[in-house]
Amino acid sequence: LINEQIDQFRAEFIELHPYDQAKIFEEQTEDIRFLIYSYLSPEEMGDVIEHVDRDSVAGFITEMIPSFATDILQNMATDDAVDILNELDKNKVASFLTLMKKDAAEEIKELLHYEEKTAGSIMTTEYVVIHLEMTVKQAMRHLRKEAPDAETIYYIYVVDTEKKLAGVISLRDLIIAEGDWLIQDVMNERVVSVPVGGDQEDIAQMMRGYDFLALPVVDFQNHLLGIITVDDIMDVMEEEASDDYSKLAGISDVEKFGDTAWLSAKKRLPWLVILLFLGMVTANIIGQFEATLDQVAILSVFIPLIAGMAGNTGTQALAVAVRSISAGEMEKKKKWRVIGQESLTGFITGTVCGVTIMLLIAFWYQNAVLGILVGISIMATLIVATIAGTIVPLIMDRLHIDPAVASGPFITTLNDIISILIYFSLATAFMNLLVG
Amino acid sequence: LINEQIDQFRAEFIELHPYDQAKIFEEQTEDIRFLIYSYLSPEEMGDVIEHVDRDSVAGFITEMIPSFATDILQNMATDDAVDILNELDKNKVASFLTLMKKDAAEEIKELLHYEEKTAGSIMTTEYVVIHLEMTVKQAMRHLRKEAPDAETIYYIYVVDTEKKLAGVISLRDLIIAEGDWLIQDVMNERVVSVPVGGDQEDIAQMMRGYDFLALPVVDFQNHLLGIITVDDIMDVMEEEASDDYSKLAGISDVEKFGDTAWLSAKKRLPWLVILLFLGMVTANIIGQFEATLDQVAILSVFIPLIAGMAGNTGTQALAVAVRSISAGEMEKKKKWRVIGQESLTGFITGTVCGVTIMLLIAFWYQNAVLGILVGISIMATLIVATIAGTIVPLIMDRLHIDPAVASGPFITTLNDIISILIYFSLATAFMNLLVG
Repeated sequence: LINEQIDQFRAEFIELHPYDQAKIFEEQTEDIRFLIYSYLSPEEMGDVIEHVDRDSVAGFITEMIPSFATDILQNMATDDAVDILNELDKNKVASFLTLMKKDAAEEIKELLHYEEKTAGSIMTTEYVVIHLEMTVKQAMRHLRKEAPDAETIYYIYVVDTEKKLAGVISLRDLIIAEGDWLIQDVMNERVVSVPVGGDQEDIAQMMRGYDFLALPVVDFQNHLLGIITVDDIMDVMEEEASDDYSKLAGISDVEKFGDTAWLSAKKRLPWLVILLFLGMVTANIIGQFEATLDQVAILSVFIPLIAGMAGNTGTQALAVAVRSISAGEMEKKKKWRVIGQESLTGFITGTVCGVTIMLLIAFWYQNAVLGILVGISIMATLIVATIAGTIVPLIMDRLHIDPAVASGPFITTLNDIISILIYFSLATAFMNLLVG
Repeated sequence: LINEQIDQFRAEFIELHPYDQAKIFEEQTEDIRFLIYSYLSPEEMGDVIEHVDRDSVAGFITEMIPSFATDILQNMATDDAVDILNELDKNKVASFLTLMKKDAAEEIKELLHYEEKTAGSIMTTEYVVIHLEMTVKQAMRHLRKEAPDAETIYYIYVVDTEKKLAGVISLRDLIIAEGDWLIQDVMNERVVSVPVGGDQEDIAQMMRGYDFLALPVVDFQNHLLGIITVDDIMDVMEEEASDDYSKLAGISDVEKFGDTAWLSAKKRLPWLVILLFLGMVTANIIGQFEATLDQVAILSVFIPLIAGMAGNTGTQALAVAVRSISAGEMEKKKKWRVIGQESLTGFITGTVCGVTIMLLIAFWYQNAVLGILVGISIMATLIVATIAGTIVPLIMDRLHIDPAVASGPFITTLNDIISILIYFSLATAFMNLLVG
């Protein structure tokens, strides 16, 4: 690239889709990135930046000459500019805003106010709005004029004289309608909208359910504030899925292969250190049963098996509960019925696993009492662990805490402790039989 | 509902969005569902069925009078009909196909051939296609005629005389263009397409990256076979995310709160039983160290702590690797570099946790040797577990197995075994110091 002529580079690069441009751009060294900055206009560079991975975009923006970066930001879609600014630190944001044209800065400031992960933070203010009393022909003329700047023109929202959302018409219906009809006669009045403070995960759920390509965002008085388009919702879905997945694995923040080892360690350590202390609790509980252990040393052999089974059953139940709650399935069902059903599931899995291990140990170790002890422990443990895995996220949901926070490692350790208590209590009770 | 008049029910129900209709419909008892079947036309009922939860749709279809169900299936979008038929058993599908009109049956049969989770299985054949040599005006006329049956009219694909994909034009560009221009002069020739056998997860990734609302599907000779729309891709994203999440938790198939306890148990038992046998292996390994255990009974107290830490570290590393591989991040990076970096991460987390536990035990149990033993074990375990969590999915990916199959419980148990081997080997080596 270095030796190539500007013209040749531009001719080839500009023809590509911005997503492909971004992929090429991300792979370049700093020197070449600076060459690219000088070869492209702010608008062209803006298209590239919009498609760059969100985690690296802050680095690129800050390495540019500030005036160039500002030009990029004010020329790109407002919602994307806000997304990028949200990745930068507050001082940088303020200095970019000062450099911007006043109206662009105003628009961005307004969107920056909305809380992260709400409708307001992902909506765009670049959309086409038409008035109730326009004719179809007038609306089409308006649309042609506004089309180049709008994020989507496939749903056109209709407002009344107070700027309140009154209806929606799809471009599809608009091009089929006769030119002299009034918009209020052809529009759909049953327009589904979302409140500006609505949670992005709920909105993704809605958009997927209704198969919409865009949703209007309104304030509490039904004034139209912006729209959310399906491409932003796909990003939300990906983000939420990564988030849930990471939490189940006990990683505090979404992590990628691109992170440095230090950053990765920082994201993983919080849970590991918590587990360490919880592990000390487990160790202490086992310590309480030292007398039992001293008499029947073979008991310790099955500790990992029982704790492992408990941890895994709990994680399974937790995963089902977290997914169902976040998919909004929970509202439809009665909580007690779910808990009852999970108990039955725990009973079935517990019985199957308990009987299996009982037979295995009875024959392998030629020790029926030990087999029965471990078998009953596994059965009791699986029932309790399943219920714990279900109840903990339900309680968190009730307390309005994201249930995904009750991540895998937490439930696993909780169930480790429960299972060891059950196992050693039973062993102590059975003691006469075991040593006899 | 039972006492309501048909007219009143229809008047209110038909006005709702099909997604809301479906939600109401799903909550009814069988008796009322049968009333609804008799109140609605096949087309109206088809809209409802399209939005019903995919897991319950088979039940509804089979409880209807077969001729009514057939009418529904042949009146709905072909790709959705195929999705529903895929949920039924083969005999039922064959009998529905016999009842259908010949051309509807042919279209469905063709799509039924495509393998699940490929582009072919999620594409629709209802789209608008125009010819290279049409004028903009002719294209618009064609579009108006075809619009009612097409899944989307916002991207219009252009073919040449051999029906090969030649370009694409958005409705947006089409309505801005002059009426007498030729399509081949205004269309975009750089059209991105996907092969009919392409993996649905890769396609979702592409659609999200390029911000497209639809993608054309072609055969190996570039003949246009169908299109994939963004609403189907949102379902794919949800499905893949649930799938990965369930696998990390060790559930063999995606599970919901709606499942019966028996079904839930069936989905959870495969991993639990595998774990039971793996747990027996762990028990046997500990059994090998019985002599060591007999001499220093306190060793067993830390088994759950060490195994738990190993399991969790492995799951963290696994989650990062699986996510990165499925997001296509892996191709950009060198495998050895990733493994090296993960080793460093393991070293950092291992050192932090190892030193912490060493100090905790040294002061709490007043036993410096035991502290050093457990500390070193934790450190070694965390390094090995991190590397195992990274390498296993990488190897599976190389062998073209979905790395998500190497789910949490498998890695956890593998690391349980590794950690116990490390711990007891070190303990045996340290024996003189421990008993001294």
